[in-house]
Amino acid sequence: MLIMADTKIDFNDYIASIPDFPEPGIIFRDISPLMANGKAYSAATDRITAFAKAHGAEMICGPEARGFIVGCPVADRLGIGFAPARKKGKLPRETVSVKFQLEYGETELFMHKDAVQPGQKVLIVDDLLATGGTVAATANLVEQLGGIVVGTAFLIELKELHGRDKIKDYDLFALMEY
Amino acid sequence: MLIMADTKIDFNDYIASIPDFPEPGIIFRDISPLMANGKAYSAATDRITAFAKAHGAEMICGPEARGFIVGCPVADRLGIGFAPARKKGKLPRETVSVKFQLEYGETELFMHKDAVQPGQKVLIVDDLLATGGTVAATANLVEQLGGIVVGTAFLIELKELHGRDKIKDYDLFALMEY
Repeated sequence: MLIMADTKIDFNDYIASIPDFPEPGIIFRDISPLMANGKAYSAATDRITAFAKAHGAEMICGPEARGFIVGCPVADRLGIGFAPARKKGKLPRETVSVKFQLEYGETELFMHKDAVQPGQKVLIVDDLLATGGTVAATANLVEQLGGIVVGTAFLIELKELHGRDKIKDYDLFALMEY
Repeated sequence: MLIMADTKIDFNDYIASIPDFPEPGIIFRDISPLMANGKAYSAATDRITAFAKAHGAEMICGPEARGFIVGCPVADRLGIGFAPARKKGKLPRETVSVKFQLEYGETELFMHKDAVQPGQKVLIVDDLLATGGTVAATANLVEQLGGIVVGTAFLIELKELHGRDKIKDYDLFALMEY
């Protein structure tokens, strides 16, 4: 975790922790207070943008829906595109797909076949790294399309779930750890 | 629809039209080619940001999930927050909610109770204005929280569905019309 010397923001102040959501025993880390605060949202976007730039990202990819909130301003800052990874039935054109296990059961993720160009350098962004299933699936989709995953970036890493073990081929940035 | 003289971009070139999706008889207007193209995405964000600024927006609010893709870079450009309106089961803390009719059936939308502050000026953003149900519901949520809806902005307005009749109390911006 990189904390720049010039910042006055403690990002943890903008995370709400909700016990037993969505299931008993799980503490949900809610990023919505961070997004609601312009200064905190902007400062978080600074950090992820710096990581994206350092890795030569040419496209930002994020899984729905909080990955959009984190990734889209980064794409805009760099003047590059954003490619969403979405759940079943959301993408109207030809897709690639991958099935995977989540904490709460099996699911499937899709991307449009033309969402990423072969050889394109892609940064994958999401709000939270938990078991790593969603980000590993998103990386799989990008690679099915011939894209090069140059890194993964998150607002929060839940250390005890060891999600980073599923994506150890890629550089990883996390703004906060729990 | 405002087309600035200095632009070379025809945004319509970046919309994919898919017949009979998600249901027979509906032409789905897919914004993903626009989002995948950094120049087009940035230019679209320019226009909505200008509208947001002119209306004094202090918060951007968008319904999931494409409203996030459109609205989040606008929030970032202005250094203000983003408040998501979400479907059932997505928001972990206390919410307000509203039920409404969509083209494809009844649904319900939620916002966190602290997502918008009383008196805060809110711009509502989504990818597409169809029947207006989603944006009217989002405006209802913002107003339940005491927010002031200063306008609504879309990439696309489907004129024949007359969605703007449902939100005629608010200024409206649409980048494209179909």
